[in-house]
Amino acid sequence: MPDFEYRTQPQRVLFGTGRAGELLTTVLAELGDRAAIPHASAPGAPRVMVIATRRELERSAAALAGIRAVLMFDEVVQHVSAESAERAQRAAETAGIDVIVAVGGGSAIGLAKILARRSQRPRGLPIVAVPTTYSGSEATAVWGLLENGVKTTGFDPRVLPGTVIYDAALTLSLPRELSVSSALNALAHGVDALWAPGANPVSALIAAEGIRLVARALPRIAASDGDISESDLVRRGIQGALSGRVDALYGAYLSASAFSSAGSGLHHKVCHVLGGAFGLPHAQTHAIVLPHVLALNVPAAPVAEAQIARALGTRSAVAGLLALRDSVQGPTALRDVGFRESDIPRAAALILPAVPASNPRTVTPDDLTLLLRNAWAGTAPLQP
Amino acid sequence: MPDFEYRTQPQRVLFGTGRAGELLTTVLAELGDRAAIPHASAPGAPRVMVIATRRELERSAAALAGIRAVLMFDEVVQHVSAESAERAQRAAETAGIDVIVAVGGGSAIGLAKILARRSQRPRGLPIVAVPTTYSGSEATAVWGLLENGVKTTGFDPRVLPGTVIYDAALTLSLPRELSVSSALNALAHGVDALWAPGANPVSALIAAEGIRLVARALPRIAASDGDISESDLVRRGIQGALSGRVDALYGAYLSASAFSSAGSGLHHKVCHVLGGAFGLPHAQTHAIVLPHVLALNVPAAPVAEAQIARALGTRSAVAGLLALRDSVQGPTALRDVGFRESDIPRAAALILPAVPASNPRTVTPDDLTLLLRNAWAGTAPLQP
Repeated sequence: MPDFEYRTQPQRVLFGTGRAGELLTTVLAELGDRAAIPHASAPGAPRVMVIATRRELERSAAALAGIRAVLMFDEVVQHVSAESAERAQRAAETAGIDVIVAVGGGSAIGLAKILARRSQRPRGLPIVAVPTTYSGSEATAVWGLLENGVKTTGFDPRVLPGTVIYDAALTLSLPRELSVSSALNALAHGVDALWAPGANPVSALIAAEGIRLVARALPRIAASDGDISESDLVRRGIQGALSGRVDALYGAYLSASAFSSAGSGLHHKVCHVLGGAFGLPHAQTHAIVLPHVLALNVPAAPVAEAQIARALGTRSAVAGLLALRDSVQGPTALRDVGFRESDIPRAAALILPAVPASNPRTVTPDDLTLLLRNAWAGTAPLQP
Repeated sequence: MPDFEYRTQPQRVLFGTGRAGELLTTVLAELGDRAAIPHASAPGAPRVMVIATRRELERSAAALAGIRAVLMFDEVVQHVSAESAERAQRAAETAGIDVIVAVGGGSAIGLAKILARRSQRPRGLPIVAVPTTYSGSEATAVWGLLENGVKTTGFDPRVLPGTVIYDAALTLSLPRELSVSSALNALAHGVDALWAPGANPVSALIAAEGIRLVARALPRIAASDGDISESDLVRRGIQGALSGRVDALYGAYLSASAFSSAGSGLHHKVCHVLGGAFGLPHAQTHAIVLPHVLALNVPAAPVAEAQIARALGTRSAVAGLLALRDSVQGPTALRDVGFRESDIPRAAALILPAVPASNPRTVTPDDLTLLLRNAWAGTAPLQP
């Protein structure tokens, strides 16, 4: 075993299916009781800012019913724009908030992270994350901000949500297609963690279990219609409809926590450029690109390939991922999500300098051009 | 999957075989550069207290050569006595120390934890742990103190060492018999974590991998003589002699970190009484008691049994553990380590109220009497 470094950050993770409201009330009361919130209006009553899209606020109304927020902020945009972050920051300062409750996916939680990072409070601004997708943002200390078409990301322990409440019931209203893409994005965290610059035996252990759980859950998620109502669930028996989502949320948490420890590998560098410079949608882009990066890297990464194949329950990692993606009708081509063939050269040029030195193989401009062309067209990646 | 809670604490873990000295110098320089040490005598020069037995100071002299300590404290006793803790605290306060470097096993690190817990410094007293056994104390936020024959333990995030430096070369001088007992004690952390009150899927994943690694390493540790000198190693080829110890240290870290998350199960409640009230030696007591607790619990814990058996690479968890212990000549009887038959009733009475409500089966006074009698005599536990 080679030398390695592994760091953990402080976080409390609560899994409670159907219990988000109850857990949120308890967690906020505990935060209010702590001296950590010096200007709370009253003991047990921290000044809460809720960040969520309007649609999310409606969907999660029951979970949020028990808390009194002093500020609701619903200007939630993908990749977190500098403009929305500034407006959110001004609103938060004016309202004198003590804690942020972020309900949603990577965009809502990502905005909360920027506010926590900019907070001048001596002990920081605590975030309670209530994820409703498989983005995994809640489990990482990675923040991202889009300014003038350039996406900047960084690692800062202050942005890690101190508390995460996972309630699979809140994912039931996520449309089927988005559920599938989001779960494939979760897989990408686990896969990329295996060869990222800070990859280590602990993050590999956690990543492999994350991949296994998400892969096992995906067909169950895809088999049930999107936008299931709770009354539907009761009629059909909640247990079966929920179990895939519980597994996927847990697997997404594991994969993202491995990713937070290991850092960004080649896959995330590619998607970072596609999302930041070309405005492509986050989850779908990750879902489409992953098999291509996997096919490029596995010939040079036999240990990672074996771990991924075992986690997918197949003999070949690439074939296993493609079969899984196709079985759940995952997205296949960047041309379908707004990427143009003429953008390939510029994208390749932007990605090249960002390729991590730790990548298992050298990556040439031609490699990137071929990868982007295949991903653009939806062609199957060259099998090793 | 049932609802669960999982908490992580902030810690930086460095594995560097043969590199403890180099890593220690780097880590202390980083601590000195931080504003976290307001009364450091000079930037980059925190006031260091080293806690280690005299024997350990000699053994680890090379690793410690590069640091200038203002205080060396070598009154290290098992189970951390209140008297030694008070003397250490007075010495630390007089010397105005900024950071503790604890080199050794659970006793040296355990003493550092009491000092960190009692520190009045606003940001606490950082601990850099350099473990030379498989006790795993460095990976837990659990402290223990022995006062008037009563051992008190507790959980406090402030006592978790912020940095751990694992250098398997430092374990080479540990006598063979103690290496074996210490590694069996490490196994006990992983096993007990599977049914402790806070057991959860993440701690179970980490515990199973910890058990697997320690079990795989044990025969390699036992096969090489204790007290290996570095010149012996060079002569025989370092790689082979060290690999078992690297795996065991890593497995011990994983098992202890699972234990820190899951809490004390029945096994630790039993050993806590035997160590605290009867003064039995820590590692040997755990090594002897573990198969008996395992045999008592597994009929009521089929999932844990399967996880343990798989990690041990055997069909039966109990038979697998006994075979492993015997193959490495692990200790078998409490009568050999100072426990008297006449102490059984009092020990059983002390353990009974401490049995966790989460234990997979109800534990009666007769169960405990039989368990202690078998462990005292070294009789094989009743197989399920």
